[in-house]
Amino acid sequence: MSFAPWRSHLSRALHRNRSQPYSRYLQLATVDTQGLPANRTVVFRGFLEDSNQLQFITDARSNKIAHIKAKPWAEICWYFTKSREQFRLFGKLVLVTAADLEPALQLARQQAWQKLSDSTRLQFSWPKPGEERVTNPEAFSPPQPSAKEPIINFCLLLLTPEKVDHLELRGEPQNRCLYLLQKDQTWSTQSINP
Amino acid sequence: MSFAPWRSHLSRALHRNRSQPYSRYLQLATVDTQGLPANRTVVFRGFLEDSNQLQFITDARSNKIAHIKAKPWAEICWYFTKSREQFRLFGKLVLVTAADLEPALQLARQQAWQKLSDSTRLQFSWPKPGEERVTNPEAFSPPQPSAKEPIINFCLLLLTPEKVDHLELRGEPQNRCLYLLQKDQTWSTQSINP
Repeated sequence: MSFAPWRSHLSRALHRNRSQPYSRYLQLATVDTQGLPANRTVVFRGFLEDSNQLQFITDARSNKIAHIKAKPWAEICWYFTKSREQFRLFGKLVLVTAADLEPALQLARQQAWQKLSDSTRLQFSWPKPGEERVTNPEAFSPPQPSAKEPIINFCLLLLTPEKVDHLELRGEPQNRCLYLLQKDQTWSTQSINP
Repeated sequence: MSFAPWRSHLSRALHRNRSQPYSRYLQLATVDTQGLPANRTVVFRGFLEDSNQLQFITDARSNKIAHIKAKPWAEICWYFTKSREQFRLFGKLVLVTAADLEPALQLARQQAWQKLSDSTRLQFSWPKPGEERVTNPEAFSPPQPSAKEPIINFCLLLLTPEKVDHLELRGEPQNRCLYLLQKDQTWSTQSINP
């Protein structure tokens, strides 16, 4: 597998903005089961090894699970505040749950879990997200789950980009480049008007 | 008209993050004409006077125009990096073009144009966004348009929220509040699990 041509630009953006922890935060848009747009912030967890797939994590109890199962397409919008550039990545999502039988994906899910902080792992044992607030504070201090084996609520989410739109606001006047995945799995690259 | 209950929280976030110019940048998700998600960064241009409608601007030649005409729903995701809080605002979009006959909306469009910088106004006279890059640099230095009368490519975009989901990551454990617009135009407020 070869790196897609937009990978070097994204790596450079991550490097240039590395002083800001939120440079790994981006917005993931999906379509809900009624065909309406949904949008939320997620954290980039690196690329799946030997692939161009971006990794995210999510709770099996969150609303976006139903959206993804009904329509596994997403566009992420990633704005880097320091270098003033935006990446829009459109593609297909794959959800890796505890029930996934593919060994390579199950291993990736396990490794993603192991890389989390204790406090992030704990959140997957909190009361069900989006429901009426549980007022007992002890509900948010459950026993610390194992750092080795992911709990059932933990899902890995993979995005395979097919279209990448990179806009640099600092260009003169601005630079914008469109990358499209071709049927033969190579990428086209085209400069477009900002 | 009375301010929606989430307005004070959003105003506070804008105030707390005011040192960062990009605190007014947010991500607007729509659904395209094929039912697929689209997501891009836009700049918040304040509320329309005496309303809870958020103002944005857009070019009449951009792809999102077709999306909005086919399905005028959007969810914006607005993450404030300094105060570490997220607002998700779901609602209906109204596009105000040069052809709009409603005097109050046309006035709002004109006022939005007048508030822009010269360089932002100039961008509406640039070559068509998203098309193959025009290599002649003079195409990006057209005559400066009038600061008073918006050019035909300039659109005002209004979002009327119906659902607002406010998440504060700094809470203990975290605070999350859901606001829903009721049929009688009042807002319900509910604490939910983060």
